[in-house]
Amino acid sequence: MARTPIWKTIAATLEGEIAAGHYRAGDKLPTEAALAGRFGVNRHTVRRALADLGERGITRSRRGAGVFVEAAPTEYPIGRRVRFHRAIEATGKLPTKQVLHVDTRACDADEAGALHLTAGDRVVVYEGLSLSEGTPIAHFISVFPEARVPNMAATLGEVTSVTEALRRNGISDYTRSETRLTATRANATQALHLRLREGDPLLKTVGLNLCPEGRPIERGLTWFAGDRVTLTVRSD
Amino acid sequence: MARTPIWKTIAATLEGEIAAGHYRAGDKLPTEAALAGRFGVNRHTVRRALADLGERGITRSRRGAGVFVEAAPTEYPIGRRVRFHRAIEATGKLPTKQVLHVDTRACDADEAGALHLTAGDRVVVYEGLSLSEGTPIAHFISVFPEARVPNMAATLGEVTSVTEALRRNGISDYTRSETRLTATRANATQALHLRLREGDPLLKTVGLNLCPEGRPIERGLTWFAGDRVTLTVRSD
Repeated sequence: MARTPIWKTIAATLEGEIAAGHYRAGDKLPTEAALAGRFGVNRHTVRRALADLGERGITRSRRGAGVFVEAAPTEYPIGRRVRFHRAIEATGKLPTKQVLHVDTRACDADEAGALHLTAGDRVVVYEGLSLSEGTPIAHFISVFPEARVPNMAATLGEVTSVTEALRRNGISDYTRSETRLTATRANATQALHLRLREGDPLLKTVGLNLCPEGRPIERGLTWFAGDRVTLTVRSD
Repeated sequence: MARTPIWKTIAATLEGEIAAGHYRAGDKLPTEAALAGRFGVNRHTVRRALADLGERGITRSRRGAGVFVEAAPTEYPIGRRVRFHRAIEATGKLPTKQVLHVDTRACDADEAGALHLTAGDRVVVYEGLSLSEGTPIAHFISVFPEARVPNMAATLGEVTSVTEALRRNGISDYTRSETRLTATRANATQALHLRLREGDPLLKTVGLNLCPEGRPIERGLTWFAGDRVTLTVRSD
């Protein structure tokens, strides 16, 4: 078998140290000169290893400042039982929510279709940010049919968890029936909320959640920061 | 019940005519003056209706040129039995593939992990474009373990369908076990292939397909043009 090039070995070593937490997200790697000394190679070889890490999204080079470890995207499973809190906890990170807005208003045509409402029916609107370890990973707008959960707006003033708020409104469980995904661009407001630049790529999902008896209870739009989240779909 | 504003009625009428194929993707709508005459309203009301269609992505206004019908995104289901040809045909559109590259090479670390190979094992690489009605909707790179399908590269010189090529190599069926989704930006090459601008949002999927006996047979990376495709996941 062909010998592994030395730059690949260096890249694999650094990748292993990052994976092991020796260098963490946001940390600066040692300088090219320091790495060349450590591995006993010239700087050209170190540069090739760093270029490889950069291409694979493990590090990011900032001109004049050095090479920094990128945060690994948070894995977020899409399936029958999508729960933000549990999904983030499962990755060993701390999930929080920041409420931007709770309100009630008349439903629009898309909401009426999804939630089986008629024009003029009112919905509770819940808008906020989902954070993982304090970093915003998504902007969401969820709507609920007010007639089915009349106290939902008041409850969302007390708890940020949709699961808990629905439970307090008599909906003990819900399941995701469909998720629709597109790629889009952050608008100015989303860029501000998600600490991105306007135009940065977002993964937009439109999900429909049903009560156990099959009635739609939530239509949720979520915009995930493109490089902070990997959505996963298991189909077996 | 409150009366529907006239601009909403006009927007709904135009939307219905677009849905019915009276105006098709790329068609120019009549001028504001013509629409004002047709509906017996002033141009301000027409403008409000057109703004609504624009906000919902049904039309796009081009400065000085008029208002044009946008192509509806192609719906593409992600599930156990993902098949490009069938998914596009199901939307009433003509699916085709354009081959960019067929080759064999040593696998990389990610491919080795996904396909249960060891360093140095060879893979067949199939790169191309997926088109719907002649419009490119995705750029894909699929790799197959050469040892399991030794004639795959030659077969992909004869047929563009992965399903058919695998069948000719003795793999009569396959199922998707996992799909991972992120949002990213089109690089210069992808922008050219997909007729986008560099930096435009792409929906990237990494999918793993298994033989009926559970062995990995294909790892596929696909970059969908963000505004031309809606991926759908049913979880019931």
